[in-house]
This record gives sequence, structure tokens and C-alpha cells, in this order.
Amino acid sequence: MYDIAKIRADFPILSREIDGKPLVYLDNGASAQKPRVVIDAMSDLYLNDYANVHRGLHTLSNISTEKYESTRAIVARFLGVKNEDEIVFTTGATEGINLVSYGWGAPNLQAGDEIVLSVMEHHANIVPWHFLRERQGVVLKWVEPEADGSLPAQKVLDAVTDRTKLIAISHMSNVLGTKVDVATIAKGAREKGIATLVDGSQAAVHGPVDVDAIGADFYVITGHKLYGPSGSGAIHIRSERMAQMRPFMGGGDMIDTVTRDSVTYNTPPMKFEAGTPGIVQQIGMGVALEYMMGVGMENIAAHERDLRDYAQTKLAGLNWLSLQGTAPDKGAIFSFTLGGPAHPHDISTILDKRGVAVRAGQHCAGPLMDWLGVSATARASFGMYNTRDEVDALISALDLCHDLLG
Amino acid sequence: MYDIAKIRADFPILSREIDGKPLVYLDNGASAQKPRVVIDAMSDLYLNDYANVHRGLHTLSNISTEKYESTRAIVARFLGVKNEDEIVFTTGATEGINLVSYGWGAPNLQAGDEIVLSVMEHHANIVPWHFLRERQGVVLKWVEPEADGSLPAQKVLDAVTDRTKLIAISHMSNVLGTKVDVATIAKGAREKGIATLVDGSQAAVHGPVDVDAIGADFYVITGHKLYGPSGSGAIHIRSERMAQMRPFMGGGDMIDTVTRDSVTYNTPPMKFEAGTPGIVQQIGMGVALEYMMGVGMENIAAHERDLRDYAQTKLAGLNWLSLQGTAPDKGAIFSFTLGGPAHPHDISTILDKRGVAVRAGQHCAGPLMDWLGVSATARASFGMYNTRDEVDALISALDLCHDLLG
Repeated sequence: MYDIAKIRADFPILSREIDGKPLVYLDNGASAQKPRVVIDAMSDLYLNDYANVHRGLHTLSNISTEKYESTRAIVARFLGVKNEDEIVFTTGATEGINLVSYGWGAPNLQAGDEIVLSVMEHHANIVPWHFLRERQGVVLKWVEPEADGSLPAQKVLDAVTDRTKLIAISHMSNVLGTKVDVATIAKGAREKGIATLVDGSQAAVHGPVDVDAIGADFYVITGHKLYGPSGSGAIHIRSERMAQMRPFMGGGDMIDTVTRDSVTYNTPPMKFEAGTPGIVQQIGMGVALEYMMGVGMENIAAHERDLRDYAQTKLAGLNWLSLQGTAPDKGAIFSFTLGGPAHPHDISTILDKRGVAVRAGQHCAGPLMDWLGVSATARASFGMYNTRDEVDALISALDLCHDLLG
Repeated sequence: MYDIAKIRADFPILSREIDGKPLVYLDNGASAQKPRVVIDAMSDLYLNDYANVHRGLHTLSNISTEKYESTRAIVARFLGVKNEDEIVFTTGATEGINLVSYGWGAPNLQAGDEIVLSVMEHHANIVPWHFLRERQGVVLKWVEPEADGSLPAQKVLDAVTDRTKLIAISHMSNVLGTKVDVATIAKGAREKGIATLVDGSQAAVHGPVDVDAIGADFYVITGHKLYGPSGSGAIHIRSERMAQMRPFMGGGDMIDTVTRDSVTYNTPPMKFEAGTPGIVQQIGMGVALEYMMGVGMENIAAHERDLRDYAQTKLAGLNWLSLQGTAPDKGAIFSFTLGGPAHPHDISTILDKRGVAVRAGQHCAGPLMDWLGVSATARASFGMYNTRDEVDALISALDLCHDLLG
């Protein structure tokens, strides 16, 4: 059974009040809160065992290195990846996708080569490809979702031509909650020798992910959405693609030898990790992933399905509210606008007075906003610690918005 | 007066023992320990006020954004920079220098253009320039130090030709402790329209730095050496150079508008900061800088000069020890080898048994090792919390090394 009271007690900030009201944190799509074990693990390292990694032979360096490197195995286990040398640490999804754009895209793509992506992508999975368009004439091909926000795998594969070199696609939309069948896309792409990058920033948070089974070439996660620290993250890169990549950032750790005239590079994954890494936050991310696996990813998914169904029913009852995205089996992420002059920013501000934290804006998804025909939405995004009572608090606060702004 | 007992008490890890011996932490050149105020500030944010920055209108997001953005002013004050919009947050020196290589170097340098750098540079200030050599035919010109490790500014300026576009130079060597007169170099370079990048990773830790007065185009610092968290850092970029730069990483925050066909960029510094940043560790770095300024950078410098003089005298008394680098006014960083078969790795391991943490290896400085004619050195590097007693502990442990290995 899902012990929601215990889980909530594990996250100290959830006991906080906002203006005398209990915090109802529904901004998980932007960043999740952290369990005490994660916060304590980081403090404990700094208090007792901290040193730089890899380059030392003294006790503290050895302890830090062991904790840091054992995190790689935790990430591999979390993602269902057998070969932990295919896990590269990053500072988050943005660095992961830029690593692919600079490390794989720039040296391998020619003018006229095509990248297929959906209009639901987050800017982190758009702008690095615009760089390749601006700088070397790569062509971006866009796939639109269906009216309900769903995105059939075949529709993505239908956009492929003989110039397509990469499909860059989100596993779950950060705005609509749409889940995408990335396994079918990756399979279809691979049959044609096309690479697939999957942005798992949202999907990996809300249920089990088996990256080896999906079979994409690049799978990106970000720690701060996974109940881990800011500045943590990882990317899984299949070995065959690693072999096609040049390094991204240059510095310590990623080299083998450096002379005045030449440089040779370390073997992957170190080839792609330059300089002193985010030691403590990566270790913290490992603790967060262990925490999630301890609760059980299937259990988290089931809990959030219940929240989704409950919230969907409640929101459907507000006939003055427009919900964007109703794809089957979507995640518990709800974007909406109110009729009339109510700006999403006003909605967010009024909800905040009731302790309800939601996000308002473009959600780093400009092309999707254009497609939806809106300038912004409000978004309530749920996580493993949210409750039906919090859905009720959201609905009640929205009623207030409607009274004030409607 | 410099209250060393109070300062040491502010750093909890310094009370730790290693194998029953008090920790003598002399690996500050690799990474410094953190005062409790830094550790607590980060925990407190996660426990009470954490949310993503910039994109929210709810209370937690506003608190986090305010703390995050106020850190920019702290960094500016620490560096003596008037215009805080010239401060770009990074994950450390490596990302800072790669930002310049990718954002300024790649679009502005042509085949045959020259970059002047010293053989004392850290790999972080070498490999990003090797990328430009490998990828677009830029030429690297190397300047050697004098026999004592000093590096006269004029020697650097003498390496300039009419093809020179950039001088990339460390303000303080991480191996030899040599301080370089970067103000004279920057002035001479600017008169010829040549850009200067100064790697302040070590120098900014050990005394006051006035970046506006130095007048370099790029000045790099890294938080984890400044008693701040891993994964934090910043770079100062003069506005004129910002205007010549294209963005480095693409993602959220650094854009103005994103459509299917185009992208426009935010104004600096945001143009150079992509995605969810290292919110908590950047705030932690700000607390660390405030802590240092509270003690007083001049006071820290005076304390470390005393340690340097004391250590230098003591080390000079060990006639079986070769000290690399004896430049006048050097920092309290001592690299050395023992005669005979003693490998620096063995020295480090034996010292560790006495609780003394030093680093052994190349110190990310391959060209300098070649110039010194050694494969590796041991390095004892001091910080604001070290003491004369710890110098004695080092000397005593080195005596033991000599007995065992000599």
C-alpha cells in the first residue's frame, strides 16, 4: 500500500505554510521538492567526507570518489541500463541535449540533413537543434499532435525522409502530459539508421522507464525534477553513438594526455565529463533515485494515475475552464486557461494566496503555445507526494479565480 | 586580528579524524572545504523555500529567484565588478572557459589566428583552445616561465604577433603558486585589440581581486575552490565581448522567442545561461563569498603569506626534497618530489596515514609536468583555515616518507 502520509513526512517543505495556508505544491513539472534523505546526504558529505574526486589518493577523496562513481550504477539501475559506462553525468536535461547537439550533431550532420521533432518539445529540446540550423543548415521538421494532444508514433515516423538523421522527441510533454510511444519511434528510426534522442525529463519522474528496452540512442533525465538536487542529471548514450561523438567541453578528467601540440581523450563516459563535476549534487541525485525505487516506480505511477483521474474529473466539471491536452493515459500534468480576460499569471497569483503553487507562462514551449493558439497557460503538475485533498484545494482556489476574474 | 580558532570552528569537517589522526587538509587547490553557513544555507533552502527560479509567480519561486539573483550582485562585489549584468553563472571554471571557447572563440577566430598561453595552464585553460586548433586551425603559442616558476608579463606580451587574438592565462598557477601580473598583460593586449582571458580559479581564493581594475575581457572563478559548493561558479565578461558572442548552450531562460522557424535570444547575462541553473549551489556560493568577505580578503591573504613563508622555510630544510616553483610572492601552494624511487602517489598515501591530505599527480597540467621534467608531483595547497601546526604536521609526515622511501 502507498503510505502517502509517510511519504509526505519525508519531504520537510510540505509542512510549510504560505500566508497561513498549507502549501499545495503543484509545480512539480518545473522542479520537484526533495526528501530529507537527499538533503541530509548532501550535508553529511560536506560535514564529514568531502573532497574532489578522481584525482586524489587521500581518504576524503577516496570516499567522495566512491560515492560519486557508485551513483553511476544507481542511475543505470533506475533507467534499466545494463552498461553503466553508457551513463554520462550532466547538470540537467539542457546540458545533456546540448552535449548531443555539439558532440554528435555538429560533427555528423550536413546542410540539408533533417531533424524531426514535435511541436510539443521543451525549448531545451528545440534550441540546440536551431543552433545546427543556424550554424550549418540542418533542417527542422515539425510534427503536430492530434487535437487531444496525443502524438501517434506513426505520425512521427511518417515525417522521416531519406535526409532524416535524428528524431528528437519528448517521452512526456511538460505542458500537456502526453505520453509518447518512444519505443516504437526508436525501433522504426533504427531500422533506417536514424538516431533517436528521447527527453525523459518528465516521463522518468512519473513511472518506470526501461531505457534499454526503449532502444533510443540518447535518453536524457534531469535530477531536480526527480526529487534530487538542482544542477544534477544524466544522459544515457548507446556505445555505438558514443563512438561517433567528439567531446563537448574540454578540461580535466576528459583527457588522456595533453601536450602543447596535441590532446588525446579519455574513454567514455569520462570523455564527456569535463572538469570537477557536481560531486555532491550527483550523489544527492543517486539518493533521490534510490528513494523513488524504494517507494516503487510502479506504485508511484499508480498513485499518480489515481490523482490524474480524480483531477481530470474535477476539472471537467468547471465549464468555464479550458483544459489543454486530454490524451489517453496522459500524466498528471494539467494546463488550462480560463475564459475571458483572466491571464494565467493572474490565476497563478490568486492561487498562491490560497497556498496553491502552479506555474503560469509558456512553460518553455513556444511552438506548442503557438499551436494551441494561446500566449500562456496555467499548469498544475502533480508528483508522488500529492493527494486528492490537494486536488480539491486546487479546484476550490480555481473557483475563487473564476469569481474574481471570470 | 585573524581568529583562526573561530574560522576553523566554522568548518565542521576540520574536526574530523583520519585513522585516529586529526585531519590536516592541504588539498585546497583541488577543492576547498565549506563553512557551516554554506552547508546550512543550502539545506535551509531545500527544507523551507525551494522552487525553480525565473518562471514562477508563486511564493516559493519568488523567494528562490530573489536569493538566486541577489547572488549575482554578491559575485560582482567580490570581484570588484560594477556592472552585475557582466556576471554569468557557470558550473565552474571549466564551463566558463568552454563558454568563451564556443561562444566567442569559435565564431570569431580564423585558421592561423593565434592564442597565447603559458605552459603553466590548467587543462581547463588548454583543452578548449586545442578544440579550436583541431576544429578550425587556430594556432597555440606557448610561453615558458622562468626557472623559478615566475612568469613576467612582458614575456607573455612578447609572444604576441599580429595574428594573436587571445591571451589565455592563469592568475595563479595551481601547481607552482606563481602569481602573474595579469593587469599588465590585459593592458598590453587591449592596446592591440587582443582579448584576455584570466583563469582566476586559484587567485581569487587567496586574496583580493579587482577584476574591473585588471581589465581583462574574461575572468573565471569556480565556487568549489572558494569554500562554496560543487557545481557553482561564474565568469565576468566585459559587455563589449558579450556583444561579440553567440550563445553556448541552448534551452530555457536564454531565449527571447522560439518558433518552428526561428529563435531569438535573451539579453546578457541570461543569453549565456541555459536551462534550470544550479539554483541552490549558486546561492551557496554567494554565502561562501560573503563569508570570505566577512573575514576580509586582505586578512586571508596576510594569513596565507605567513603560512607560505613558514612552510617555505621548513621545506627548504629538507635537503632530500625538490620544490617546484619558488617565484617571489607566490601563493601557498607547494609542489614537490622526493629524490630516488619515491613516487608522488606513494608520498600521498603515506601522508594520508598521518591524516595529511595532499594531492599527487599531474594536477591537470600536462605541459607543465613536461616542462618540469617530471611525470607527477605531490602538492600541498593551503587555505584560509590552515595553521603553522599543520605545516609542522606536513613536515613531520614528509620526514616519515623520507625514512620509508628515501
